[in-house]
Formats: sequence, structure tokens, C-alpha cells
Amino acid sequence: MMEIIQSIEALKRLKSVLYRHDFLLTWEKSHDDLLMILEVAAILKQLREQNISPRVFDSGLAVSNFRDKSTRTRFSFASAANLLGLAVQDLDEEKSQLSHGETVRETANMISFLADFIGIRDDIFLGEGNKYMREVAAALDEGFSEGVLPQRPGVINLQCDMDHPTQSMADLMHLQHQFGSLEALRGKKIVMSWAYSPSYGKPLSVPQGIIALMSRFGMHIELAYPEGYGLIPQIVELSHQQAKQSGGSLTVSHSMEEAMKDADIVYPKSWAPYHIMEQRTRLLLDGDKEGLQELERQCLEANAMHRNWEYNESVLRLTRNQDALYMHCLPADISGVSCKEGEVSAGVFERYRILTYLEAGFKPTIIAAMMLTQRFEDPAATLAAILNRNRERCM
Amino acid sequence: MMEIIQSIEALKRLKSVLYRHDFLLTWEKSHDDLLMILEVAAILKQLREQNISPRVFDSGLAVSNFRDKSTRTRFSFASAANLLGLAVQDLDEEKSQLSHGETVRETANMISFLADFIGIRDDIFLGEGNKYMREVAAALDEGFSEGVLPQRPGVINLQCDMDHPTQSMADLMHLQHQFGSLEALRGKKIVMSWAYSPSYGKPLSVPQGIIALMSRFGMHIELAYPEGYGLIPQIVELSHQQAKQSGGSLTVSHSMEEAMKDADIVYPKSWAPYHIMEQRTRLLLDGDKEGLQELERQCLEANAMHRNWEYNESVLRLTRNQDALYMHCLPADISGVSCKEGEVSAGVFERYRILTYLEAGFKPTIIAAMMLTQRFEDPAATLAAILNRNRERCM
Amino acid sequence: MMEIIQSIEALKRLKSVLYRHDFLLTWEKSHDDLLMILEVAAILKQLREQNISPRVFDSGLAVSNFRDKSTRTRFSFASAANLLGLAVQDLDEEKSQLSHGETVRETANMISFLADFIGIRDDIFLGEGNKYMREVAAALDEGFSEGVLPQRPGVINLQCDMDHPTQSMADLMHLQHQFGSLEALRGKKIVMSWAYSPSYGKPLSVPQGIIALMSRFGMHIELAYPEGYGLIPQIVELSHQQAKQSGGSLTVSHSMEEAMKDADIVYPKSWAPYHIMEQRTRLLLDGDKEGLQELERQCLEANAMHRNWEYNESVLRLTRNQDALYMHCLPADISGVSCKEGEVSAGVFERYRILTYLEAGFKPTIIAAMMLTQRFEDPAATLAAILNRNRERCM
Repeated sequence: MMEIIQSIEALKRLKSVLYRHDFLLTWEKSHDDLLMILEVAAILKQLREQNISPRVFDSGLAVSNFRDKSTRTRFSFASAANLLGLAVQDLDEEKSQLSHGETVRETANMISFLADFIGIRDDIFLGEGNKYMREVAAALDEGFSEGVLPQRPGVINLQCDMDHPTQSMADLMHLQHQFGSLEALRGKKIVMSWAYSPSYGKPLSVPQGIIALMSRFGMHIELAYPEGYGLIPQIVELSHQQAKQSGGSLTVSHSMEEAMKDADIVYPKSWAPYHIMEQRTRLLLDGDKEGLQELERQCLEANAMHRNWEYNESVLRLTRNQDALYMHCLPADISGVSCKEGEVSAGVFERYRILTYLEAGFKPTIIAAMMLTQRFEDPAATLAAILNRNRERCM
Repeated sequence: MMEIIQSIEALKRLKSVLYRHDFLLTWEKSHDDLLMILEVAAILKQLREQNISPRVFDSGLAVSNFRDKSTRTRFSFASAANLLGLAVQDLDEEKSQLSHGETVRETANMISFLADFIGIRDDIFLGEGNKYMREVAAALDEGFSEGVLPQRPGVINLQCDMDHPTQSMADLMHLQHQFGSLEALRGKKIVMSWAYSPSYGKPLSVPQGIIALMSRFGMHIELAYPEGYGLIPQIVELSHQQAKQSGGSLTVSHSMEEAMKDADIVYPKSWAPYHIMEQRTRLLLDGDKEGLQELERQCLEANAMHRNWEYNESVLRLTRNQDALYMHCLPADISGVSCKEGEVSAGVFERYRILTYLEAGFKPTIIAAMMLTQRFEDPAATLAAILNRNRERCM
Repeated sequence: MMEIIQSIEALKRLKSVLYRHDFLLTWEKSHDDLLMILEVAAILKQLREQNISPRVFDSGLAVSNFRDKSTRTRFSFASAANLLGLAVQDLDEEKSQLSHGETVRETANMISFLADFIGIRDDIFLGEGNKYMREVAAALDEGFSEGVLPQRPGVINLQCDMDHPTQSMADLMHLQHQFGSLEALRGKKIVMSWAYSPSYGKPLSVPQGIIALMSRFGMHIELAYPEGYGLIPQIVELSHQQAKQSGGSLTVSHSMEEAMKDADIVYPKSWAPYHIMEQRTRLLLDGDKEGLQELERQCLEANAMHRNWEYNESVLRLTRNQDALYMHCLPADISGVSCKEGEVSAGVFERYRILTYLEAGFKPTIIAAMMLTQRFEDPAATLAAILNRNRERCM
């Protein structure tokens, strides 16, 4: 209780401008904005664990719009909404449908008359996902200003082509807990490494989100991937600048072994090369099925050249104290378990398995914190009121 | 606040018998019933906008049974249920399945043990949709009287083959707001006009619902369609009678241009001809796929003869002050936007677009009002209690 | 009100250990455990009927994981969760997917960060369904002990390959009401009989659940089926032992007519033979489509030899007072209604139809009672607090 009161006090020192702003990309948010989300998430987690209900809505909808399938993020979003008192309503569209313009503008309003949030996952098309979210946001702005909507629902990016902020923020919160504080991350080496997977077309949003966020906390980031597996250049460049400014660094290299040396934190994960994703987007938009099959064949063939990019005992041994913190957004492609050869060996994954669960466990409260700060101008006051009200979550 | 108190006072003058009666067709409801729904909807809307939660259920289910796909009505129903404190539970049936008799009787009870409302959309089969709702209602009556159900869930028609009351009532509420009052509608000319669409099999329930409802408020209705695109004759005849009784009129004509002259309100919308829908129902029931394809071909061919039934600048110019209020249940088939040639030109639609959003925005509170009046014998007392309780919707 | 207070007092005499234990099989529960569930269910039912809300959660999720389709149990689970204040979140998996090991362990945790219950139906594969539930439960134990989960969600068996406890407990509660008390069931003859159905692969869990539960209350059970249609031998043996211990008996016979003589209660229902289900499981696991088709053909052919196993007027006439209580988990295969020839004649079903609805009506509160007793150490105290709080379910 005392701890929560102190945390609430600490919030008052932050100058965040999250109120009435969508959460679309971490790099659009200030340092204080990010601290605010982390702190509010921590407080919400503690309230829940102490059986104090942080319900702030007596009714209201949180709309989820998953344009790609999801279990983890879907449940995290539903849990966050429910914790604050909102009911989830899914917007089911035809899969992979690319609606734009009139349809988006209209639908955004039609689903929002009594909605407080819209969470969107749209990570299939490079150059499209984040753009779609902004189209929805603009439509909501218009609807609200024209008196169509009694409130402006907040938009939350549940993964796009550029960023995966609910993931990267949960990952950061996990690091904060594992290392004791954000300050303790300063000077640490984190390796965001490509890893082999027998699959194709995995989005770039996780590695991009990780380097773009972690580069702001004084860490030394090593981004490692086989030649040709680069990320969106602008995001790499941005992360580079941010790393410099925060007193850290960002290096790009092309050997998992080299990269992992003395790493404090490792994030080995597969992704598709940027240029493949670009071609794929064009082929998808053209509906070119043969082209897509050929591209998939090429891509898997290229992947297969890098089977040695597996995070296993011998690579782990190169890291700091032979025990770097292993991270993954899950599910991982585990060699001999979920596939023949994959991103990580079974033994190494098993050693860090519970830690990856703990990592994932921060997502629901991170999303709830994004909601709360988007909707309440003075989160400290709101949380203090919740604490004073002292309503039981479970009787 | 004062305004809400006055509105609640006004309710007391109405002698409605909505309590414990399903909402299946507007023409089964008295004038006072309709006024009651409109007034309760207006009060609920104001309460919500003033952050006063009108939640009346601590728990309970609102079952939705969509036998045809829907986004708008689905969200409206979910919003209404949520506003009053109910959780939505979908009854997913195989699409287009025509269950009757034993199955309906049993399922209606099985889903209703703790349900407060069942919202049904069944608009595919002419002569079947409304009948199905009555089968469900009869099964619920039996279940309640036999002690199977602790309460009799109210049934709400979310669109059938005959009427679309949540749409037409929201449309009426929109007119009430646009023209200032129901009284102001007296003498106004409203044109319910067929319009061209490159699609087939659109239900008749919207035009039927519009003429059957608007004919009760002293308006001059012009129902315009190409020869052969008539509606269910009994509903046209009923609307004719009602128009006469209310001091208005109903005329049928066969030219969009002629009809639109001096119109105050226009509702250009495509629908399938009654006789085609009848044949289609027979073919669907027989499972005659070839017959259905042939019928679709014929119907689209017939439609194509009436491409000139587009509501555009030159038609708009014929209306009162060249600015009749344009209405649509959305989504509209917009020429050059959602189809090559459609119901309305892009420029005209754009001019009235926000107005159509406002129109749609009345649906959630109309449905909530149908629920509240179905369940509470004295809505004025219930709303006064809500106001006195003064519980925040959002903390 | 007085009655509820007395019922709550009566609870205090029971020594149940339901707290923090999953509900997976009735035969793992003590006599007092079962009485506790029945009593709590009865109290919850009365509270709801007297408009007292038994909501104990301000927020929280009840996850449903239906690996086989369901309408009745789905709605019962949703109703129970809703009654206690939880929102339902469905875990949609690919149909008939057999996930094990890593995937189950991980998913169980990923969906449970803010979940209070997980209800699982998995009745397709013999030897797999209950095992799967235990895998989920073990994963939740680990997650909770490792600090991944702030609470250990309770697991509720919504039908597996062995038992269907929410059904059998609802059936027992129905018998309790029909005969006045559990004591009154002592010495009664209940016939669990196979019946003809033109379908294939119906699970064994209902007949197994019925004999394993009813054998504990001093009833004389007759299990009747055509040669070759036996159940899992261990469950029959267990039921035999239990029947002896409770002062009843269990007999197996192979003629519906013989079995039904002087029956007080009859439960005629189709199921697949154990050895067919075993073969089917093997073929499904092997993905042997041809083998499955051949097995289905054989099975339907075998079924067809027993068309005379229909519960009809002439069989009914053999029962006690020609009026044994007819039970069914619904939907029944009714001759001339849902199929040409089926489990029960139309006339007999119609006579007992409302009784089968009443029987089904106990399921939501049975599930709610399983939830409440799993989560609250002292249900009497919790229910007394609910009564004292006296919050209206509907305003």
C-alpha cells in the first residue's frame, strides 16, 4: 500500500502528454511519456495483485481489430480492457482485406459511437499497417469534431509494419524488473539478432520496435543479421541517433557468434528481409499468387543458408557470465520441439522459459496503462482515487 | 441536468404498453409507444454524454442471433447492451440455415436461462424472418410460463424480411433532431426512392420500414421505383392508410426525377423487387443453385436497365432549396468509390456524409431504449432513479 | 430470504475441499464436495430469482476453450461467468488440433495473466481429453508457483472423453428437485440406456458421467446397450463399486425393453462403442481419412441393426406407473422430427420436453457453483456476504 502511494507520488514529477494521444509508435513519445506508461503499468499490476480493482469505466467498449491472427495480444488486450471495466467487441473483417478510404472512414465511426478504445493489429503489408491506423485515427478525429462521436476513442497499435509498442514496452518493463531499474540498463549490451526459422514472412515490427525503444536507455545495441536481412533503414538510422543521444550505441553486424560476445541481454528472433517484405506487399496487392509462391520458395531457400543462426549452448557460452538474459515475444521456433531446426535450442529455451512467460506477463498492464493515460489527464489523481475507493477486485 | 429532468417529466404523459412486449414491427406499436422509445433514447443519450451511467443490470446476457452478416447493427446492439450492463453472447449458427420447429423452440430456451434480451437479424428469406422471430418469442413464452426461464427475455427485431425497426426509429430520431421536432415533420415531403446498385438481393426491410413508420407523422411520402420493383403490397397499403390518418399522403411513382421535385428529405436506396425475392426464397428453400444463378443474372440484367436511378447533383437540384436532407442506412453504393455506378454520386454523398454518420449514431440508444422500455414498467421512475444515483460512466 | 439463510447455515456442516481444486471428474470429489456444489448452486439460483446479484468479481476473465462445437454448454458457461462478474474470452484453436507439450504449457499461461477460470471441452479423442485438461492444469500450477500468474485459474471440465461433470451434476440437481431430495433417490431405479441414432461418433462421456455419479446415491442403475457398445471398463467397474458402497446396485443388460421394466428414471441416449472410439482416435491421430470413412460406414451399419432401441410409447409403458422420468442432455434425436428414426419417439419426447428443459436449466448455476467453491474458501461466508450486501441484479 505504502509502495503504491509512493509510486503515485513519483508520477507527479513526470510531464507526459499522453492524454488524448493515440499510441502508435514509441518514437513519437517523449521520455517522460514512456516512464509514465511504465509507472502506471506497475501501479496497476500492484493494485490488481493486492485485490484492489482499478476499474474506471462502468460501461464502454474496447474494439479490437485484428487484421492478422493473434492469441497472446488478443488476450492481453481483452485483459487490459476488462481490468478497466470495458467489454471487448471484435471487428471481424475478411482476412487480409485491404480496406481504405471511404470504408475505413465510415467503419471507424460506425463502431465507435460508444467505444473508448480501438486496438489494431495490421502487420501484413509493409507501408500499410501504420498508415491504416492513422486513417482510422483521422476518421475518429473528424467524427469527434463533427459531433458524431460523444468521445474520441483512443487508438492503440497492437502491432503494425513498423512497430510493436505493446510488446517492446512490456519487454522494457521486464528488463526494468530483471535489472532492478531503468538506470541499471545503462551500459548494458543487448543483442537483437536474427535467428533461423523454417517459416516465411515474419514481420519486422518486433526487431524494429526493440532497437527503436532500447536505444533510448543508454544501452549498447548490437543488431545482427545475415547479409540481406536488414530492417527498414529509417528506423535503424533513428535508433542509431537515439543510442548516441542516450549515451549508448548501435552496431550492425553479420555473425550471431560475434554479436553475442559479452551480451547482457539477447533477443534472437527470425524475421523476413525488408526487400522480401516489400516485394511480398506488391505481389499481395496485385493478387499475384504465382509470384507469391515463387517468392516464398526463394525466401525459404535463402533462410536455409542460415540454419546456423540458432541460439544454443555454444552461443550462450559466449555471453556475459554465460548467462545473458534471453528474451522472446513468443512463440519461439524451438529446435526439435516446434520445428526441426529453429531459432533456439530446446535446452537453452527451457532454461529461460519461465523468464519469457514473465516477460509476456507485463503486456496486459502495459496496455491498460496506455489506455488509462490516454483517457485520464491526471493519472496520479485517478490512481489515488482508485486507491482511496479501495474496491475489491474479487470479493 | 434540468433538461433531463424535464424530459423525464414528459415521459409520464405517455401511455405506452411496451413493458413485456417484444419489438418486432413498428406498426404493432402505438403512437405513444413510439414517442416513449424516442424520448427514452434521447434521455439515455444525454445521460451518457453527461457521463452518468444508465447501467440498470449488474449482470445478464444480451444474446445476438445474426442470421445474416452485420457490422453496424452488431456494434449498435453490443453498445446498447453494454450501456445497460449486459454482456453480449453471440449465437453462431451455420449461415443461412433455416431452422424451425423443434430446434428453434429448444434453442430459444437453452440460450435464455440467464438472458435478458435476444436480438435477431433474419432478413434473407421473404416470409420467414419475422415468422422466425415469432417462433422464438412463442418458445420463450412457453419456457417462461412453464418455469424453465426465470425471466422472459425480450426479443428485438434487428432486421427481418418485413421491417427494420431499429433502423427506421433511428432514422426518425435523426429527422426529429434535424427538423427540431416531430411536429415539424408534418407536411414535409420525404422520397423513399429505389436507386441503382450493381448488386442483387438487397432486402426490402429498409424501404418498407421507412414508409410504414414515416407515414404516421403527417409527412407526404413518395415511394419511387422502376416498374417491377414493388414492395410487399400489404405494407404499402398499410402505409397508405396510416398516411391518410396522420394527415399526410403516400404516392407511388416511377421516375426518380419526378419524385424528387421539392423533396425535403430523400432516401435513395437499392432493393430487390418483391417478386424476385419471392422466387429467390423458393429457390433457396429448394437448394436450387442453378436456378439461383439464373435468377441473379436476370435480376442484375434488369437492374442494369435502371443505371440512371442515381442520386446526383442534377437530381439534388430538383429538391427543396436544392438541399433535401439525404438519408441512408449505410453503407451506400457510391459511384466511383465503392462501385463503378451506384446509388449516389460521390460528390453528393460527400456533402451529406457526416449527416449519415449522425443518423447512424442514433441506433445504439434507440436499441437501449427498446430494451429499457421492454423491461421496466415505469421508465420515468427508472430514469429518475438513474439520475438520482448519479453514477459516473467513466471515473 | 429465510430459506436462503437456512441453506447457507446448512453449508457450514459440509466438509468440502473444493477450494483451489479443479473440477475434472466427479469421482475425484467427496460426497460432501458434491453436496456443497448442489447446495451452492441452489442458493445462487434462488438469489438470482430474487433479484439479488451474486456478483463476486468486479473484473476478470473466464476463458472458454471449446475443442468441439457447443451451444448449450457454451451459453451455460457464459451465463455462469457473467453471473459472478467475469467476462468470457474464447480461445479459438483450429478445430480438432491436438496440441500438446510446449504449446499447451505456454498457451495455458499466456491466456491466464488475468483469468480466473478456464473451461475446457475436449471430447473428441479417447484417452486425450481429460489428459489435455491435466496438462493445462499442470502448466497453470507451474505458472502460479513461478510468479507468472497472480492467481491460479481454476479449470472446469466442460466435457471430456471420460466425464461430463457439469451435465451429470445438473442432471443430479434435476433429480433432487423432481424427487424432493437426494435421500428420495435411494432405491430408485435409473436406466442409462443406449438408443439408436443415425449418427456416428457420439462421445461416451454422458453415459459414463451418469453411471459414475448416480451410483453414489443408493440408486439401482441399469446400464443397457446392444452387445459391443460398452463404455470404458474402468469407469463401469468404478460405478459398480460405488453403487455397492452406497447401498444401490449396477447391472448391465442388453435389451432396452428388459432394462426399462419398473424404471423410475430413464436416460435413453446414443453413443459410439468404446472400441470404435478407440479405433477412431488412432485413425484421427494418423490422419487416415479413408480408414475413418470405412470406420464410419461400419459403425453406421452396426448402429442400423439396433433401430429397435427407440424409447417410445410401448417401452414407456413398461416403466413404473408407465411414467418414468425421461432425461436427456439434449439435443435428442427425435424420430420423425430431427431424423427419420432416432433415440425417442416424437410423442414421448413431447410429453417430457419441458422436463428436459428444466433439467438443462440447472447447468448455468451448477457451473457458477463450481466456480464459486473453487475460488472461495468459505462459500457460506461468501454467500452470506452477498445476501447482506443485497445488491439488485436488475435495478
